[in-house]
Amino acid sequence: MEVYRHKVHYYETDKMGFVHHSNYIRWFEEARTDFFDKVGAPYTLTESLGLISPVLTVQCEYKKSCYFGEIVLIYVTLEKVENVRFYVSYRVTSVDGELRATGTSSHCFLNEEGKVTSLKKVQPELYKKLEDALGK
Amino acid sequence: MEVYRHKVHYYETDKMGFVHHSNYIRWFEEARTDFFDKVGAPYTLTESLGLISPVLTVQCEYKKSCYFGEIVLIYVTLEKVENVRFYVSYRVTSVDGELRATGTSSHCFLNEEGKVTSLKKVQPELYKKLEDALGK
Amino acid sequence: MEVYRHKVHYYETDKMGFVHHSNYIRWFEEARTDFFDKVGAPYTLTESLGLISPVLTVQCEYKKSCYFGEIVLIYVTLEKVENVRFYVSYRVTSVDGELRATGTSSHCFLNEEGKVTSLKKVQPELYKKLEDALGK
Amino acid sequence: MEVYRHKVHYYETDKMGFVHHSNYIRWFEEARTDFFDKVGAPYTLTESLGLISPVLTVQCEYKKSCYFGEIVLIYVTLEKVENVRFYVSYRVTSVDGELRATGTSSHCFLNEEGKVTSLKKVQPELYKKLEDALGK
Repeated sequence: MEVYRHKVHYYETDKMGFVHHSNYIRWFEEARTDFFDKVGAPYTLTESLGLISPVLTVQCEYKKSCYFGEIVLIYVTLEKVENVRFYVSYRVTSVDGELRATGTSSHCFLNEEGKVTSLKKVQPELYKKLEDALGK
Repeated sequence: MEVYRHKVHYYETDKMGFVHHSNYIRWFEEARTDFFDKVGAPYTLTESLGLISPVLTVQCEYKKSCYFGEIVLIYVTLEKVENVRFYVSYRVTSVDGELRATGTSSHCFLNEEGKVTSLKKVQPELYKKLEDALGK
Repeated sequence: MEVYRHKVHYYETDKMGFVHHSNYIRWFEEARTDFFDKVGAPYTLTESLGLISPVLTVQCEYKKSCYFGEIVLIYVTLEKVENVRFYVSYRVTSVDGELRATGTSSHCFLNEEGKVTSLKKVQPELYKKLEDALGK
Repeated sequence: MEVYRHKVHYYETDKMGFVHHSNYIRWFEEARTDFFDKVGAPYTLTESLGLISPVLTVQCEYKKSCYFGEIVLIYVTLEKVENVRFYVSYRVTSVDGELRATGTSSHCFLNEEGKVTSLKKVQPELYKKLEDALGK
């Protein structure tokens, strides 16, 4: 598990006075990108190998609101790595540990022709990095 | 079920060349807003009655990509209305009916003090509108 | 001059209670895209010819706020077309004609190598469409 | 002048392959917020005093593209503080100092009734903080 810090921007709020729910999905991406940087499998590397990794599913449960100016922590866990898919989970908390949201996402790998691709087969070293990052 | 049309904007794409996944969550909101307009329970009315209706959960499954310039249709169904919660489902398709994504969301009502509120009790007429829209 | 209609989305508001200023820049793009569709020079065509048209400058003056649920009209004028640049202006009003904002943008054409390109030279027919749309 | 660091997010790119121009306007806001934090006049304080500070004008010149994963630096200067307006300028560079964009914005103060307000009169201490930050 790695933790990512995000300071809430004004443009992320809506007229309810707190963060618009769609932005958590973007925070998940920020935190996931940061996670892959930290475990030595940066997404820029994935791209440079001719692969993209689109989102297959995303899900979020909102527990408490997040407010402009506060720092939120996003804990990322790589839950499972399969041949052609991987699964990530997220916990958003305040700096004091108050739970704000939980979520999950799943992803595949596509090659330059847009075909679903086994990372294990085409990029075993990158696959190994993901395996090593499992459950961390 | 009501259907909402959305033309894909350039700013909704990302460097993969198609729509960024977070925008579907925003499309769900656009389509949900439109649905409540059509069934006579516009969100501006809800707000004018001193209520807000935040998102409790959201979930999306991405089936096929959506592209800049194309029109997507978002079918909205109000699945269930409870005392303090309601549940909505979404289907995103191309104009030809090709399935692009499915999703769900759930919502509650909060009063001006931020307390969870029974719509049935405080706004029975608005509640009735939702009941009438059920499964449509 | 062509006019484009936009219904204000909830996710476009911020905690001030009205539309976040950055969204006007996105509305300009929506309206500009619509304008080029209407004058027979759709941006998807530009792209299919191997060109992109990035923004060089953008500017906006905010006069009055725009609110969730209302319809705004965005009037687009193609002000000038040069060899390698074009200039667009925008007026945002309510449906009653109340001025909300004005703005401008300028753009160039880049080819697939990212080089600035004379549209007149490489795509004279498309250039002609722009010339014909001038001041409209 | 204060400098703010921003790591470019994937969701900030568009299908051209680099950052969508509208996001610079959001970065200006991030950097401006950070600036006011640093000079002891945080926007959360402004709000707690019953004031908001909407954007009157914004302008950006794009020099070179910004890419996913890179860090950009945004230099903020408070250029002028008047009775009811203030003016800010921005420079966006790579970490190596390559210029990516420049911009400006201007702002006023509104009280809770939405009336333009002299900061000097209603909040002289906060006004003093801004004056002290001038040209820094």
